Amino acid sequence: MVTNLVRYRHEQRVGWGVLRGGLITPLREDYARTADLIEHGESDWRSASKEAGNLAWAEVEPLSPITTPCRVMCQGANYRQHAIESGMNPDDRAFNLFFDKTDASITGPHAPVVRPARVELLDYEIELALVMRQQVDTPTTITSENLHQYVFGVTIANDLSARDVQLPQGQFLKGKSYRGFCPIGPVLAVLEPDDIPLLDDLDLRLEVNGEPRQGDTTANMLYRPAETLTELTEFCDLSPGDVLLTGTPHGCVATSPPPLVRRLATALLPEDKLWASFIAMNRRKSYLTPGDVITASIRRADGALDLGTQRTIITAPEEGPSR
Amino acid sequence: MVTNLVRYRHEQRVGWGVLRGGLITPLREDYARTADLIEHGESDWRSASKEAGNLAWAEVEPLSPITTPCRVMCQGANYRQHAIESGMNPDDRAFNLFFDKTDASITGPHAPVVRPARVELLDYEIELALVMRQQVDTPTTITSENLHQYVFGVTIANDLSARDVQLPQGQFLKGKSYRGFCPIGPVLAVLEPDDIPLLDDLDLRLEVNGEPRQGDTTANMLYRPAETLTELTEFCDLSPGDVLLTGTPHGCVATSPPPLVRRLATALLPEDKLWASFIAMNRRKSYLTPGDVITASIRRADGALDLGTQRTIITAPEEGPSR
Repeated sequence: MVTNLVRYRHEQRVGWGVLRGGLITPLREDYARTADLIEHGESDWRSASKEAGNLAWAEVEPLSPITTPCRVMCQGANYRQHAIESGMNPDDRAFNLFFDKTDASITGPHAPVVRPARVELLDYEIELALVMRQQVDTPTTITSENLHQYVFGVTIANDLSARDVQLPQGQFLKGKSYRGFCPIGPVLAVLEPDDIPLLDDLDLRLEVNGEPRQGDTTANMLYRPAETLTELTEFCDLSPGDVLLTGTPHGCVATSPPPLVRRLATALLPEDKLWASFIAMNRRKSYLTPGDVITASIRRADGALDLGTQRTIITAPEEGPSR
Repeated sequence: MVTNLVRYRHEQRVGWGVLRGGLITPLREDYARTADLIEHGESDWRSASKEAGNLAWAEVEPLSPITTPCRVMCQGANYRQHAIESGMNPDDRAFNLFFDKTDASITGPHAPVVRPARVELLDYEIELALVMRQQVDTPTTITSENLHQYVFGVTIANDLSARDVQLPQGQFLKGKSYRGFCPIGPVLAVLEPDDIPLLDDLDLRLEVNGEPRQGDTTANMLYRPAETLTELTEFCDLSPGDVLLTGTPHGCVATSPPPLVRRLATALLPEDKLWASFIAMNRRKSYLTPGDVITASIRRADGALDLGTQRTIITAPEEGPSR
């Protein structure tokens, strides 16, 4: 059975607890890093999970259950319909697309996020995040049978993306890494070995100002966690508390024109004009603007796993323009 | 005046020392992490730099002066001629292109590097690497005047790149991050405030089997260290011992066809055919193959700064194919 851990601030103190029925049972120790909790906190959270809660979740400030520094590895175009809206054919994929975000992007699940001054096309991407359990320094074969030895738990991540930076630059790193561009949490659900199959059928839902934007199930994921982690270990070390964001379903604001239109435009327009026209056309769409509120949740229909709800308000920069 | 630090293994012990005239003066403490050396080793290396060396450099195994975990941030197309050979106009650049490598790619300056089984187009990229001195968690204005407060020193990095993975995938991360794809060292040159101007005129040279391939000066760098670090801190935290690879000069094996040819091919060929033809055309070129030896050096003509020489032999995988 899943244990729901949360990290929070209450009366100046930052701590961890087990969350059940809207009540927190605080853990005895503080665990400055998520890795400390993973490596040294098991008896603490197991015993807390047997005690009644005594602190209302509504009274605390939820924090990211992933502390920094950590690695934030990502998969691109990993759901069928999102691959199509990104201009790819999901049945003709030659590779699992990896990229990463900086850990400077990590923020809390209810923290406001500043839309940087020069960003116009701010988009959302709800994703299931896997939280790593152990150090991996060598290519490693990970299967659905031993996945629980490598994955400590799961949480929600929003891979916020400045499309007008990410797409013209080609490399995704900067446009996806502005400070605050990765809200994580609220719940870090710790998985027992028997819980692993729950990951195969989770509902992801994201709304903006109450309007549904993204809705899909992890059953539509293209490259699954075990094969993805196996490939990742060929070129990436993993440490306890690192995360892998497993891709977003369809429903982002940005979509790609059909392949033929895209290829003709690429052939006929100079690159700067191409992107200027992309940005101009996209300004009419419903990208995120200051005041918008994103809510994002991941849960199973049967309630066996529920990662809670992120609530992110987009704000304007306080002072003069930054880049 | 610059102090040349090296990290090495000698008789099973890993340690640090000051290198002068082919002799090492070992530091008193071990410093498991580069960050420990930076934060706690100053009096140690300053006093060692006044003592005579007693261990021959030729007798030790040189190790990377950058320990992991660390961030490996990179700039793309940051030299005029390399931007041109990559299909860009250096006078019409709209942005400083950032990407990163995983720290799993880091290896020693004389370590052999395996060409992975499925990689055919293995390329080299000599780069000046800046080594960070202090924690930066917030957007920070870094100027040529305060650069020494943020940059502890410099070293050589080779941004080895599997072009047949990097280019078809679009995102650079995997193709540039295979294990061993970032030889670093041998010398970590610690800079005094007065040494910063030395960075503006360093000669970078890379040879394969004694044949010159890359040769340029840091004077031809497009986006300079202070402005680059300022922009980087907008979306990336920096910690002591992290590195920024400042881009490679021209002379890589991979070059881009002229823009018109590229655009027509993009319009006319399906993407898989496009890359298949790129890879077929490139097989004829002199990419790295097992047995090749790369030597890479960075120094000033006047000898005021000399980062030593990397020597990297490319090897075949020992066992069955990996991805």
